[in-house]
Amino acid sequence: MEWTEGKVRFLDQTKLPGEEVWRETDDHRVVAEAIRRLEIRGAPLIGIAAGMAVALAAQGRSAASAADTDTAIAAAIAHLQATRPTAVNLTYALDRIRERHAHARAAGRDVAREILEEALLIARDEEAASARIAAYGAELIPDGACVLTHCNTGSLAAGGEGTALGIIRAAHRAGRVRRVYATETRPLLQGARLTMWELLRAGIDAVLITDGTAATVMARGEVQAVLVGADRIAANGDTANKVGTHMLAVLAGRFGVPMIVAAPLSTVDAATPRGADIPIEERQPDEVTHIQGVRVAPAGARVFAPAFDVTPAELITAIVTDRGVSRHPHAEALAAMLRTPAPRPGGGR
Amino acid sequence: MEWTEGKVRFLDQTKLPGEEVWRETDDHRVVAEAIRRLEIRGAPLIGIAAGMAVALAAQGRSAASAADTDTAIAAAIAHLQATRPTAVNLTYALDRIRERHAHARAAGRDVAREILEEALLIARDEEAASARIAAYGAELIPDGACVLTHCNTGSLAAGGEGTALGIIRAAHRAGRVRRVYATETRPLLQGARLTMWELLRAGIDAVLITDGTAATVMARGEVQAVLVGADRIAANGDTANKVGTHMLAVLAGRFGVPMIVAAPLSTVDAATPRGADIPIEERQPDEVTHIQGVRVAPAGARVFAPAFDVTPAELITAIVTDRGVSRHPHAEALAAMLRTPAPRPGGGR
Repeated sequence: MEWTEGKVRFLDQTKLPGEEVWRETDDHRVVAEAIRRLEIRGAPLIGIAAGMAVALAAQGRSAASAADTDTAIAAAIAHLQATRPTAVNLTYALDRIRERHAHARAAGRDVAREILEEALLIARDEEAASARIAAYGAELIPDGACVLTHCNTGSLAAGGEGTALGIIRAAHRAGRVRRVYATETRPLLQGARLTMWELLRAGIDAVLITDGTAATVMARGEVQAVLVGADRIAANGDTANKVGTHMLAVLAGRFGVPMIVAAPLSTVDAATPRGADIPIEERQPDEVTHIQGVRVAPAGARVFAPAFDVTPAELITAIVTDRGVSRHPHAEALAAMLRTPAPRPGGGR
Repeated sequence: MEWTEGKVRFLDQTKLPGEEVWRETDDHRVVAEAIRRLEIRGAPLIGIAAGMAVALAAQGRSAASAADTDTAIAAAIAHLQATRPTAVNLTYALDRIRERHAHARAAGRDVAREILEEALLIARDEEAASARIAAYGAELIPDGACVLTHCNTGSLAAGGEGTALGIIRAAHRAGRVRRVYATETRPLLQGARLTMWELLRAGIDAVLITDGTAATVMARGEVQAVLVGADRIAANGDTANKVGTHMLAVLAGRFGVPMIVAAPLSTVDAATPRGADIPIEERQPDEVTHIQGVRVAPAGARVFAPAFDVTPAELITAIVTDRGVSRHPHAEALAAMLRTPAPRPGGGR
């Protein structure tokens, strides 16, 4: 995800690993549609993309009145907010943009320039957050560990090297990771398509398994930590993440394996008290009935296709944020982190 | 699966639900290859197919010497035995055929005719076993239940109406099943392709979910029983079944849902003391890296693809056989069933 000369450039992740297709646009609606179609995905990356998309809507409006510009920006923010309901990073990024817009307008400064500045700051902050998450999280990985991860939480999903996958990369560089089991992550196969692609490129020993095979590798004692990302963390630590995460957490509990969630603190939503309050997006049935365009279920088959599930805080051993590690009871640990001022002014977390 | 005029006729299950392709052959090696390629699948049906395949090898040999015929039959049995390692029904059926062959030869009777008779008897026994399993099992389903099933255990997998799916059909006829959640069952999607096809044809309210969505529906209290089949049950009750079953059993335990295994008593292998002694077949990587011929994982991706997993007996609430229901401790209950003579002479179970 890049900003170059008034355009947003992004990798169409639905085409991976078969093709590396980069798209370029100066239309915020194209970015919104890309988020909806999961060409751009991963909670932190969605936030970054949304910020840049508003910057697209704001630019090149020197002939327009301030009122018209403000209306266009507000409309773009609303349009982007509606793309996906679960990831709170989207709301977080758009809130930062909205606030910066208001301040710039009130101070009579260049609105478009300041929105772009904020969007690029969000991207830089996410990158810095990834690095800090990796540093905190790598310490939790035991020497010679095999780890299991779900969905994609790498550089395709976040600024920098990613959240859970960022931890895995850092621990691997420190010589502590022996092997990564990557679940394929149905229905959209982000594990098979994206995580395996990133792990192969990073030269990390990686083994692909179907989601239902996780019990087998854990039962054989081949997993020393489960690492996943998060799309929204409620104030009590309940965590919405890619569907299948709850299953992994239950298995981790059964087999005595640490269940580690990794996400920037911006993913923690103080306004959402418990997991039950997190809206869970349901995807279209054809994401299950068809795979890569090929029909696999009979016509007329009913489908229940939530994109995410909610893992109760009690099943989560540690939540690694860019501001430290939360352990039980998560409600208190997360509240303490949220109360502590951000390390750098303007960092926003 | 039918025997008609010296030929075996079978439905190629790899083509479902897109096409209903029936194949016909008089060559036992074609049947063996079909078992290996999962055109014929489901533990009970594999046993039936293997029996009929030996009958194919035995027939039309009136010009051959007895010694040559016996060698050809033994070779066919060995060839079929090698197709798949986990399902004990294969061994069970081939043992019956081998014994009948020996008896017929010793008594100077028509070997080919008697082998065919035994093969058809195996098919009839499996059908009767399905009906008895359904009757015993349906009583375990509470009124108005939503049940969850994995893989395919219906008429495509067994003689008659199937094992776990046979119970579901019987309970549905009795008005007790409100809805069936069918897991798609990666990697080969027997749930999406076959179970949904059977449920739709039976007019049963069915909802397809990805394997990893099972935790969500159970956490919401929407599942009152999990029903699965078995490929081999060890003497202590540990059960090998389609990969993903162990995960469902752990989830069922966590959410207080009865975990019910359904299989003919012939699936219980007294010669296998514990689950750890069951050989688990590993499938080819391309069953995970490709879906319906389309590549989904990057080239070079390593894969771990066990076809089955082993659910410990402690997680299984009930094992429903054609000879009654086993409850904890399964080792004793199963041993008692195996000691009790079969209800009909020649029934073999």
